[in-house]
Amino acid sequence: MHLAALVEYEGTRFKGFQRQAPDKGPTVQGELEVAATRVAGEPITLEAAGRTDSGVHATGQVISFQTDVRRDPATWQRALNAVLPGDIAVRAVCEVGDGFHARKSALARRYRYRLFRDTVRAPLRERYAWRVPLALDVAAMREAAETLLGEHDFGAFGSSPRDDRATGYRGHTVRRMIEATCLASPQADEIECLFAADAFLTGMVRRLVGALVLVGEGRLSVAEFRAILEAREKAHPGMPAPAQGLCLIGVDYPAGSVSWETV
Amino acid sequence: MHLAALVEYEGTRFKGFQRQAPDKGPTVQGELEVAATRVAGEPITLEAAGRTDSGVHATGQVISFQTDVRRDPATWQRALNAVLPGDIAVRAVCEVGDGFHARKSALARRYRYRLFRDTVRAPLRERYAWRVPLALDVAAMREAAETLLGEHDFGAFGSSPRDDRATGYRGHTVRRMIEATCLASPQADEIECLFAADAFLTGMVRRLVGALVLVGEGRLSVAEFRAILEAREKAHPGMPAPAQGLCLIGVDYPAGSVSWETV
Repeated sequence: MHLAALVEYEGTRFKGFQRQAPDKGPTVQGELEVAATRVAGEPITLEAAGRTDSGVHATGQVISFQTDVRRDPATWQRALNAVLPGDIAVRAVCEVGDGFHARKSALARRYRYRLFRDTVRAPLRERYAWRVPLALDVAAMREAAETLLGEHDFGAFGSSPRDDRATGYRGHTVRRMIEATCLASPQADEIECLFAADAFLTGMVRRLVGALVLVGEGRLSVAEFRAILEAREKAHPGMPAPAQGLCLIGVDYPAGSVSWETV
Repeated sequence: MHLAALVEYEGTRFKGFQRQAPDKGPTVQGELEVAATRVAGEPITLEAAGRTDSGVHATGQVISFQTDVRRDPATWQRALNAVLPGDIAVRAVCEVGDGFHARKSALARRYRYRLFRDTVRAPLRERYAWRVPLALDVAAMREAAETLLGEHDFGAFGSSPRDDRATGYRGHTVRRMIEATCLASPQADEIECLFAADAFLTGMVRRLVGALVLVGEGRLSVAEFRAILEAREKAHPGMPAPAQGLCLIGVDYPAGSVSWETV
């Protein structure tokens, strides 16, 4: 049978989503494959919608895998959660058609980046957000973010995951942005930046947020932000936003291809 | 000079606030005293308003200490934050009068306990809240919580921190509750229980929340909850709520005794 699972994880201790050699440290994919292999009693490899970086969180990652072990989705979910570590949870499981592939079938990935304004370290908030010391002009950030909408070459803000240093192959860097905005909390001390695109380049959301914060601080104008995008060549200013503020919150699929059942 | 500091910490890795023998693991007080001693260049011991348990967080802990090293409060704050680990932060510092004592001068401690309802593990929310699988009747919980207001012998829900097993001494267990309520989020899937009292018994908030959840689940009536309180003897039903949902959010002092300055 062919299964898809909706996965949440607290990314702090993981060296990213993607499986690596065991001496490189734990990965989310590694833990999920160990758990699925144990539940199935046969080796399982899985596909995922998004390859999140080290320290990035997810509430809406989607994985898929095939297995000869026939059990109903709720049984799979309970069994996986019983063997997974506490910082990873399978939130839902569903059976999918043969053609389904968590990465290739995805129409869009949705990310949220959280910021808060404070001059002093705040340990409880900093686990899931980036602290910025200066007041941010959220309207300017939103205006800059909206220039990202539509199809663009985002080469200024990331590299293709298909780049191959050995062969010199350069993957293409054109992506279609379908949502890009920055929203402030009622007290204006917390800001969420929301992005959805058909796919993202490696490091793209964190570099976009790093540049948007410069816009919010008044150190980069909206026109300059736009010019950096249009230059297409790696020209990202400032620092990429740190991993802990980023969360993969959802993945869009064609209507009817996934239908989550929860226990 | 005599200083008070407002302290935030992410309690997960600490064996509680109170200093212990080093082989028992890290404590918040231990880290703060090491940092203050290093900044002062002389041994510092400190007093704190609340002795939070292992794994409990704080946004509003207050400490006080005396030192011969004269520096302005902002300099003290920056110096302490430069040497403290990332999961502890001094949010503000102020100079206080000679008679001030973080614990003895405190009029009240304020705690918040966070719950959320979900049938499936949710790693990102579970770091700072307790997940309960059943729907909770928040109105019943609030009604039960309000029976706690005023002066009561809370012996059913905790023991005195002054109890001494060696001598058989039993500290008194009467406390004055000035705030006790349970509030639901707009979607009713998140609940905050707020308590303020002159002081709390050891384990008291977590035992109260454990019993209030039984009320919310309909397994204990408000009258039964009230009867447990009035029996005064340790009769706390259910399990104490786990540490990670609890946060010391503030301490009240007489007007004018502390005046926080932030960097």
